[in-house]
Amino acid sequence: MKALFYDGNLRLIQIDKPRMHKGFALVKILMAGICNTDLEILKGYMNFSGILGHEFVGIVEKGPSALIGKRVVGEINIPCKKCDLCLEGLWRHCRNMRVLGINGYNGVFAQYALIPVENLHVLPHEIADEEAVFVEPLAAAFRITEQINFTGHEKIAVFGDGKLGLVISKALNFSNIAHVLFGKHEEKLSLAKKWTDVEFADNIEKYDRHFDVVIDATGKQSGLQQALYAVKPEGTIVLKTTVAGKISIDMSTATVNEVTIVGSRCGPFPKAIFALQNGLRVVDLIEDVFDFDDYQKAFEKASGALKVILKIQD
Amino acid sequence: MKALFYDGNLRLIQIDKPRMHKGFALVKILMAGICNTDLEILKGYMNFSGILGHEFVGIVEKGPSALIGKRVVGEINIPCKKCDLCLEGLWRHCRNMRVLGINGYNGVFAQYALIPVENLHVLPHEIADEEAVFVEPLAAAFRITEQINFTGHEKIAVFGDGKLGLVISKALNFSNIAHVLFGKHEEKLSLAKKWTDVEFADNIEKYDRHFDVVIDATGKQSGLQQALYAVKPEGTIVLKTTVAGKISIDMSTATVNEVTIVGSRCGPFPKAIFALQNGLRVVDLIEDVFDFDDYQKAFEKASGALKVILKIQD
Repeated sequence: MKALFYDGNLRLIQIDKPRMHKGFALVKILMAGICNTDLEILKGYMNFSGILGHEFVGIVEKGPSALIGKRVVGEINIPCKKCDLCLEGLWRHCRNMRVLGINGYNGVFAQYALIPVENLHVLPHEIADEEAVFVEPLAAAFRITEQINFTGHEKIAVFGDGKLGLVISKALNFSNIAHVLFGKHEEKLSLAKKWTDVEFADNIEKYDRHFDVVIDATGKQSGLQQALYAVKPEGTIVLKTTVAGKISIDMSTATVNEVTIVGSRCGPFPKAIFALQNGLRVVDLIEDVFDFDDYQKAFEKASGALKVILKIQD
Repeated sequence: MKALFYDGNLRLIQIDKPRMHKGFALVKILMAGICNTDLEILKGYMNFSGILGHEFVGIVEKGPSALIGKRVVGEINIPCKKCDLCLEGLWRHCRNMRVLGINGYNGVFAQYALIPVENLHVLPHEIADEEAVFVEPLAAAFRITEQINFTGHEKIAVFGDGKLGLVISKALNFSNIAHVLFGKHEEKLSLAKKWTDVEFADNIEKYDRHFDVVIDATGKQSGLQQALYAVKPEGTIVLKTTVAGKISIDMSTATVNEVTIVGSRCGPFPKAIFALQNGLRVVDLIEDVFDFDDYQKAFEKASGALKVILKIQD
């Protein structure tokens, strides 16, 4: 099969299909999305070596009979189920976690991928392949609604008009959670204006201790410091940004203002699938779709753009 | 009256007693504690200029008739009650906050101080003057039990065996919350060993993602990073440390491990008074008591020591 391999160099290679294991399914990959994490890996994040990619839609070719021929998406975390954290229920944060196309496990930029059966979710027919690629980031967005108990009375800001910020904004909007999206890109803010209030990040000074909840999806070192400026005392910052390495920050603001900072990672696939099935539209977040062989063009376009999708095979 | 004034230099001066205002009480100060914040102010923290001191016990000399002659302690925050934050109930985090001996308001290292009546709490006779000086830091310690819903099943660590760390440990112990106190000072850990488990901070490597709750009272730049190492995924860090200026930190750990970081500042005086009245002993945390005139010796001794108390007058 064809697979997009990374070991310092990114290249399309021919390798054997993955071999079946008990508890796994062999999935024929139809489409896969390029995520900022993929771009970070190309810069050295996670020291990953292997087949890239973790946002996908595919069809089960081998596995439990009930799943064969079904169109599926899949969660990206593969816990060991043996460490102390797994055993006490924290398997979402396994000590020996492998992550699809990110950490110690081959990803989905390949014609076939081997995915744990329990990671798979069957898709309803209403959701197109292009939309299904958004289930993983959308689930990460909905994670926020699991962590924060929104009452409907909060002033809420989302920082960042990149792929993740826009998806978070869409997820909040679907959940009837009013918010202001802060960004730096005129065209992305114009897009978001269709469903929410927007504001230029340059105007942040106007919002000194203003918001009850600030969601940092900037992906920038400066995101948390700005969030600490804009969040009210006793308010909450949701940290979606992962910046590799150390950041320089004045944390005494957090202590003195009694701010709560909540780290937020992967989320509930069923909620994301439900949303896509029930009216949440994401096609306006697609930048472009490329054939697998044109992966170089796709990666070039993906940086700073909306979602770029690889069409792996029909 | 005599007062300990700071404007870049620390010196005992003679000035007029404060003049009475409506809503305030004139308090004759008996004893006052030296806090690490006082020591930080001498290094430039808050750019404070005026009479230092915020931990005190005194007797009301002028004010509402019901309070005259009563022995009192007092909360340190003086909100404006007019700003938007005050008006929506966040007066504990007023935009124009003045803080006794810390920010824009004269403190209690003086024979008399003018304190808002509503900040005062009358002391029961069981609490000695030396113990009453601990009400303010003890209240800050009990703030943690307001913010964190302890179930009795958590593994809990307190980082820091300084004044605040020890007071927090005592407050947790009084609340039957088992915990391990991490510190760097043999004699302080030996003291704490009488009521809780202790551990040398050097052994922190043994506690990779071990604790459900880590309370950082180190007062050090490194405190939060170590807390991020020792806290379990989905666990909680309580930030008691205020380090002036920026710290360098890898916050992606917080995101990936979905850690919650909660800033924690001042706390409930009634709870602290109740504890001191009902068996919580703090006299073993007193390093020394100095006459007011010996303030220089007192300040010299206060750094890195247990609680140093100034005996202002009889």
